Amino acid sequence: MEKISLPKGTRDFGPEQMAKRQFIIDSIKKVFQRYGFQPLETPAMENLSTLTGKYGDEGDQLLFKILNSGDFLKEANKQNLETGNWKLATGDIAEKGLRYDLTVPFARYVVMNRHEIAFPFKRYQIQPVWRADRPQKGRYREFYQCDADVVGTDSLVCEAEIILMIKDAFKALGVGDYSIKINHRAVLSGLAEILGARENENSLFVAIDKLDKIGEEKVKEELIARGFNTDSLATLFEVLNFKGSVAQKMEMLTKTFANSEKGKKGVNDLSEVFSLLENYGSAFDHVEFDIALARGLSYYTGCIFEVKINNVGIGSVSGGGRYDNLTAVFDAKEKSSGVGISFGIDRIYDAMEELKIFPKETSAASTILITHLDNDGFKYGLKTVQAFRERGIASEIYPDQVKIKKQMEYADRKKIPFVVVIGPEEVQTKNLTLKKMETGNQLKLSFEEIATAIQLHNNKD
Amino acid sequence: MEKISLPKGTRDFGPEQMAKRQFIIDSIKKVFQRYGFQPLETPAMENLSTLTGKYGDEGDQLLFKILNSGDFLKEANKQNLETGNWKLATGDIAEKGLRYDLTVPFARYVVMNRHEIAFPFKRYQIQPVWRADRPQKGRYREFYQCDADVVGTDSLVCEAEIILMIKDAFKALGVGDYSIKINHRAVLSGLAEILGARENENSLFVAIDKLDKIGEEKVKEELIARGFNTDSLATLFEVLNFKGSVAQKMEMLTKTFANSEKGKKGVNDLSEVFSLLENYGSAFDHVEFDIALARGLSYYTGCIFEVKINNVGIGSVSGGGRYDNLTAVFDAKEKSSGVGISFGIDRIYDAMEELKIFPKETSAASTILITHLDNDGFKYGLKTVQAFRERGIASEIYPDQVKIKKQMEYADRKKIPFVVVIGPEEVQTKNLTLKKMETGNQLKLSFEEIATAIQLHNNKD
Repeated sequence: MEKISLPKGTRDFGPEQMAKRQFIIDSIKKVFQRYGFQPLETPAMENLSTLTGKYGDEGDQLLFKILNSGDFLKEANKQNLETGNWKLATGDIAEKGLRYDLTVPFARYVVMNRHEIAFPFKRYQIQPVWRADRPQKGRYREFYQCDADVVGTDSLVCEAEIILMIKDAFKALGVGDYSIKINHRAVLSGLAEILGARENENSLFVAIDKLDKIGEEKVKEELIARGFNTDSLATLFEVLNFKGSVAQKMEMLTKTFANSEKGKKGVNDLSEVFSLLENYGSAFDHVEFDIALARGLSYYTGCIFEVKINNVGIGSVSGGGRYDNLTAVFDAKEKSSGVGISFGIDRIYDAMEELKIFPKETSAASTILITHLDNDGFKYGLKTVQAFRERGIASEIYPDQVKIKKQMEYADRKKIPFVVVIGPEEVQTKNLTLKKMETGNQLKLSFEEIATAIQLHNNKD
Repeated sequence: MEKISLPKGTRDFGPEQMAKRQFIIDSIKKVFQRYGFQPLETPAMENLSTLTGKYGDEGDQLLFKILNSGDFLKEANKQNLETGNWKLATGDIAEKGLRYDLTVPFARYVVMNRHEIAFPFKRYQIQPVWRADRPQKGRYREFYQCDADVVGTDSLVCEAEIILMIKDAFKALGVGDYSIKINHRAVLSGLAEILGARENENSLFVAIDKLDKIGEEKVKEELIARGFNTDSLATLFEVLNFKGSVAQKMEMLTKTFANSEKGKKGVNDLSEVFSLLENYGSAFDHVEFDIALARGLSYYTGCIFEVKINNVGIGSVSGGGRYDNLTAVFDAKEKSSGVGISFGIDRIYDAMEELKIFPKETSAASTILITHLDNDGFKYGLKTVQAFRERGIASEIYPDQVKIKKQMEYADRKKIPFVVVIGPEEVQTKNLTLKKMETGNQLKLSFEEIATAIQLHNNKD
């Protein structure tokens, strides 16, 4: 037998996993749609000119490149190949790469279609992305992203609605214990300003972003190495460690930012988002104002979000924020402010598995298997299976005339919840034997009784 | 501005196209599920060793190959690169390729998971595939395939259910005028046998497959060039051109195949499929027994199917058949008979556009846009939009406080069917102004009246 395997870092999703993944994706998709977001899909392949330079040097290394088709050597610079200069050679033999995220393709789409799009443009996109990362637990080379963005308005309504969508999504998923952390980049810029580190704010963001992972002492060491002094750090951590209600934090920051325009802007925006949430009639449960939330990505400029499911050993499952210049990478003249949220399907899946909260009925199996004891039962079964399908009930008939034991084993292995048995008696009386696989209980019922009971059972879920 | 474009042969799907594509995919998916098929997804990338040699030489050329990550030149044979031997060099620098169809990854999945799978295994798979074909009208380098296969049984129940699924799918899509052609490879093998061309049957299949495209005369020329004589051709075309009912064709073939075991097997199988269809209680409408149907792919061994939507300038929109050895390419010992059907999403889309039969309400737009005349109206709108969403109605509020004209233009451009206008009067009376965009009609209604009317309107569809 030929030795076969999957490329490392990639996965098949069999029926059981697919049913659970579809439950997550459908739940989130319905929320996006209810908030007026529209679907977009972009190709798996983009020109490398579209992708490179957008994710930093490290990102460029992690792009999967596609070999030009046909004789890719014909036009290639032989010297690069001969001297082993693979970085230069790549450009000669590969023009296309695989999508690395959904944000850059979205920006490209917006720029290419800006005359047709009605702004503000609200789009959602749920597609796989590929990264040539070293695979490890929970990190794959192919994984789905699930993004919603609004572009073309700086209204804080969008920020408020992102919080509402997160709450609706986790409600639909059945996840009750989670926290939505919110902060504002201008709050962090304000901090940099009052510390006299305005030129050095990116180092500050990067260091603060690691607080969760490496702790306060290590972050302080890193900041000292980057030129911050002990006094600054004392002020900084007094703010970051401040305990209190949202209102108390706001009050403290208002005082702190008396002389920082940036800091004031951050506090005002956040205050407006909270006030909008009140106008929507939404409670503040799950929402935490976390001054130490930084989010690594450099393109955020306004509010930032991060969601963590509590009591599971999994990092953040969702995150996002506002960026001032989505399309600037393609067109410096185009200034299109936007704000987005991204749900991590794989992490949500792992968290829900760990918490064992997938709905019991999340299954891709048929509801009914028709089994048969003889040829007449088989023929009667053909009519019967079709009648169940016409009632919208997912059903199948065991296709071969084999022993009933084998047919039952099939239902068992496929986790089909109900089996109908048809033999001479059933054909004669038109009363079918219905077996509930979970309990082994058997009942004689008419087709109509079974169909009605199962339709009720399905609707209950 | 940086010049940006899409790789040739690839497409973005914006909101309107996505809504129509999702309608097609969801309609077919629901049918697959109702018949007990379970979802599978495989990675976009497969090892080249899995893909090569499965699609013929031409197919191998059309595989998109992925450049190994990191220093791909380090391990490469320099000589192949220097001498410009790109075919050999490919193997040195690329280990992975993009999925070319869904059948080979399915076979790989079955072989890798054969101890866990409960056979017969019924799976459906709806994912994009990639081919480095020359792009032209209706032919893309990235396109979706939508397949359902049963593997692990040779029961003709599967063939009959494929016909039932095709009928259910086109009913769900609203396509009324179409033909399902059915034939059997053994009928064609029987013909080869009685023409004394048993060793040459593949040439016969390939030539017959072109009848539709190049006509009888050219096919005859081709067959003569391949060694068939005029007498054989006369016999052949007498059978292929035979006009009559299914029963008459069966009778004619039974006589023709008096001395051909293969031919008899074909006729018996088809006769069994037709008899099963009767047992299911399914009418024979749309089904055509077409002795000249050959289907190009060489791996079919039993019944073959092809579906054509009538009165559109588009080839077959669906096709499939039985194969005896799905997994033999990976494991010669494993004999797993299977039968499958594939729907061409892009062609069905084009046909439905041409026939203008997409349901009017196939749209990804919100149902309601809340507009506002002043700040109080805006605030009242926030509460209102949330209340509509809680009723399951896709709604949005214009996020910026701008002139009503601009808000209306937005609804118009996004084809949002209903606009609610909220100004001082609406806030005071709690009666909202509802404008139906199609007619321009305006009504003053309570929230409850609007929500109920729109829920009824949505359920009607």
